[in-house]
Order: sequence, then C-alpha cells, then structure tokens
Amino acid sequence: MNLPEAVTIREVCLRDGLQLEKPLPLADKLTLLAAIVDTGVREIEATAFVSPSKVPALADAAELAAELRRFDTVEFSALVASANGARRALAAGFGSIEYVVSASDGHSRANVGRSSAEATAAITDLVGLAHDGGATLEVIIATAWDCPFDGPTPAQRVVDIAAAATRLGADRIAVADTIGTTTPVRVTELIAALRPVIDGLPLGAHFHNTRGTGLASAYAAVAAGVTRLDAAAGGLGGCPFAPGATGNIATEDLVYLLRDCGVQTGIELPAAIAAAAVAQRLVGHDLPSALLRAGDRRTTIKR
Amino acid sequence: MNLPEAVTIREVCLRDGLQLEKPLPLADKLTLLAAIVDTGVREIEATAFVSPSKVPALADAAELAAELRRFDTVEFSALVASANGARRALAAGFGSIEYVVSASDGHSRANVGRSSAEATAAITDLVGLAHDGGATLEVIIATAWDCPFDGPTPAQRVVDIAAAATRLGADRIAVADTIGTTTPVRVTELIAALRPVIDGLPLGAHFHNTRGTGLASAYAAVAAGVTRLDAAAGGLGGCPFAPGATGNIATEDLVYLLRDCGVQTGIELPAAIAAAAVAQRLVGHDLPSALLRAGDRRTTIKR
Repeated sequence: MNLPEAVTIREVCLRDGLQLEKPLPLADKLTLLAAIVDTGVREIEATAFVSPSKVPALADAAELAAELRRFDTVEFSALVASANGARRALAAGFGSIEYVVSASDGHSRANVGRSSAEATAAITDLVGLAHDGGATLEVIIATAWDCPFDGPTPAQRVVDIAAAATRLGADRIAVADTIGTTTPVRVTELIAALRPVIDGLPLGAHFHNTRGTGLASAYAAVAAGVTRLDAAAGGLGGCPFAPGATGNIATEDLVYLLRDCGVQTGIELPAAIAAAAVAQRLVGHDLPSALLRAGDRRTTIKR
Repeated sequence: MNLPEAVTIREVCLRDGLQLEKPLPLADKLTLLAAIVDTGVREIEATAFVSPSKVPALADAAELAAELRRFDTVEFSALVASANGARRALAAGFGSIEYVVSASDGHSRANVGRSSAEATAAITDLVGLAHDGGATLEVIIATAWDCPFDGPTPAQRVVDIAAAATRLGADRIAVADTIGTTTPVRVTELIAALRPVIDGLPLGAHFHNTRGTGLASAYAAVAAGVTRLDAAAGGLGGCPFAPGATGNIATEDLVYLLRDCGVQTGIELPAAIAAAAVAQRLVGHDLPSALLRAGDRRTTIKR
C-alpha cells in the first residue's frame, strides 16, 4: 500500500454540511467557521451560489463571503452549478470556484435542468470566467459511482468528463459519491481509470458515509492516488435522496484514521473534535461523528 | 490489492452483541437466531461460558445451547476465558471453542485476574480439553492493538501469543480490536507480522466501529490475508470501556462492502438487513447499522 506523506482535507461543513439544515444565522456560521479555522485546516468550502429558493440555508452566500477576510490562513472556495453562479461567486470575492457536473443525466436534470453533456460543455465558459476573474476552477464530477435516478454510472462517463475538464483548462478535478453508495474496490478502479486522463492535475474525492463505507472508500482513494479529500465537521450533511442517512464523512474521524496511517493533514484532532461539538450544538441535533462520542484513543486510554 | 474470492463471516450478535444488553429472554434470543440463520451465515458465536454474575445477559448459555440442534446448517461456537468455561461449553455440546487471551496485562487482569503470560500458558490445557472433547480451539488475541489500561500493545506481544498458540496446537487464530481504536495501516502491519508465525492456520479479525474505522480496518485485514471476520447484526454491542460508543461492525454493512468489492460471504443482504431489524426491535433501542437506515443501493436506487 503506497500512501502519500500528506493529503489536503477540504472542510465542507459550511456548504454541504449545512445545505439541508434549517438556515443557521450568519453569526452562528461565523462561530462554526472560527472553530473550524482553529483546527489548522487550510481549505474551506464556505458556501454555494445556487438558487436561494432551492437552498435557503445558503441564501446568505454574499453576506458570509464579506466576513471571510478576517480568516487569512485559509483558502475559501464556493460551489456553483452554472455560469451565473460563478459570476456571483467571483463578485463576492472568491478565488477558488468549484463547478459541479453530474455524470448521470437523471441527477443532472433534477439538479440543474440540463443533461450531463450540456453541463460538461459549459466547463469552457466556467474556466473562462474563473480565470478572467483571477480564480481557479475545480470540476467536481457528481454521481461518479451511482445516481439516485439512473443507477450505476458507467466509469467511462466519468473518465470522459474528467478528460474534457482537463482539456478545457480546469485546475483541479474531484469525484463525488453523491449518495454514499461506493466501496473501496469501485473507488480504486475509478481512480485508476481517471489518473491517465487528467494530465497530473490534483485529484480529489468526496464521500458520504450513508452506508457506513465512507472512511473505507477514503482510505482506498488515498491509496489509489487521491491527494485531496472533502469532509465535514461532525459528519454533518444529510442527503435529500436517502432520508435518515448520515452525511459527509466526519473530518475528525478522517483525521484520526489518516494520522494513525501516518498521513499528515495539518489538522489537530482535539480542535477538530471541538469543532464537531460546536457544529452539533448549533444545528441542535446529534451528529453521526464517531470521535465526538468515543474520543481519540490517545486521550481516552488511561495512559 | 489482492482480495480473496470469499471470506467467512462469523455472526457474534448473540454473544458480543448481547453481552452488555439487559438480559434478553431465551425465546427472544431464538427469534433473533432464526433471523440470523436465515441470512445464510455459516458460523455463529452463540454465547460465552463465563461468570453469570459478571455477564448476566449470557447466564442462559447452557439453556440456549440445548436449543441449537434445530439449526443444522450452522457451526455454533462458544467463547470461554478459562479451562472451567471450556468444560462447561463442551458439556453443553459445543464443537467449536474460542479461548480469549489478552495481549496486554492490564486488560488480562481486569478481565480474568491473571497476566497475559499466564493466560497464554493455559492454551495447552484449553487445546487438550477441546481436542479430547472432539472440538476445535480458536485462540482470540484481545487488545491486539490497544488496551484500555496499558495503551498501545506492542505488536511483538501479539506475535508471540500467536506463535505460542500455533505451537500449542490451536486450530485457528484471531486478533481482536477490543476497544475499537485501530486503523488500516496498523491492521496491515500486524497481519503481515502474524502470518509468518501461524503456520498457515486460518486467521480471523474482530473489529469494533467505535471510532468509525471498523469497516476500513476490515477491508485492510482482508486485503492483508485475513479470511475470517466477526460481525454483529445491526452493529449491536457496546464496549464497557467506551460509553456511548458503537459496537461491533455491522454484519449487513460488512456484507454490502464485501459484495461490492467482489468478495463472497454467502450471506444474503436483504436477509441480513431484516435480521438487524429484528435485533433492533428486540433490544428496544436504535442500532448503529448504516444499511438498516439507508438500505442497499440495489433496492433504494430507483432503477
């Protein structure tokens, strides 16, 4: 097993974590953000510029953006699903834009009202907008393993989108297990198929723990060459297509696993557990994090 | 990654799963057992012959044993921690005995009142008793990675116990992550250290999901050469040393992961989810199983 010395964890609690919660007041988001920044994380997905009526929890994207300048140790990114969203994100000052393309038509149409091919073709415009605005553009390929409408996603669709994104000038590529269904061997196989077509671009992965396999998939991804992982404090983040399911992989659980595998993340585990506790208090319900309950073995074992 | 075509899952819900629950009536245990047998599992750890005052939930071990003959597709085993327990298990008709040896002195003394070396030396007697009674003897090495009292367990202690067990005639070896702290690289390294000293004996592993890493560790174990895994329906089973922590890895979550990794278990996933639901109903509280909430992707995805 060849593991890298370090991986980058991007904290997505503020965006993917909160997007299905009852809207949190801006002041609470800033409290959570401060706790997250204290963990030592270097990249945070702060919000999304999408329809406020579809995602009311993120309707304050521009107001939140105006507050981010105080946190100067962190690279903030915003997620968008259209050129219009990218314009709003750039206007709000974001230097890092994530553009989501669904690899399946069912999810693409449900999410943004156009086919996967149409969303892929738009990468050209998104790259142009981002680069003209002095920002980087990451293409996140959603439903990379399974679609809630279309079933399993053929790997070739994901490979084709990654190749197109690379050709069209994207700065980073990521694959997302949108509904939390994938497992290690499927991860290993898809990452192996992607690496030859992305011309050395940084490759990230985004897992949900909906079926308990999120950390196993993350481990397999890192072993296969992924150097960037998304995670959310406390494991916050439901899935609209799987009621009752758990959310993103929990940052603190991922940091625990990676630390004990000898992979550095720059994130301090006690601070990550503290941030998860803040997230849990602010959303007002139990989060699925394991470390939040059980604690780090180094502090819970008596000596 | 070299994965085997198949692994054996031993269902431990009736023993490790129930041992800290309020004692379940025998009739309820038989209801649960019937649901578990229906999953297609071939090995079930039915109970333990230990002090009824220390583990009241398993005080009915002999009565339960008398009811097992009706399930003739399954190999039942019983866990013991002493020669006296082995004699009771053999008298009750068990043909497969598991003898637990803690690799750390702190846990060994707390659990059975003697040192790890003393417990290891007793393997001779246990093998003799089991073989004289026509039974097989598995040595389960507890606290194989961490001890709740002594901290991290030196791998050499586990290797020495496994070598002794092999030399003294044990039929199988297993390692247990008793407090749910281990992670994939530590698993890979310990399994690699064990394989040269166990003379080709079947090697099993037992994980708890206390820190969310149970399935990742199980995957790493299988990739490293383990062919036997313990799991409990619903993820039942608390840990006395980690209040609020989750229990064993859930059988249905493990079967899901292994199936999608191309590794056969002989267990039918819908029946495993149904057994988890029975376990949840009988113990009367929510279980940590992911599949019980989210379902198999093959049945929850619309097509």
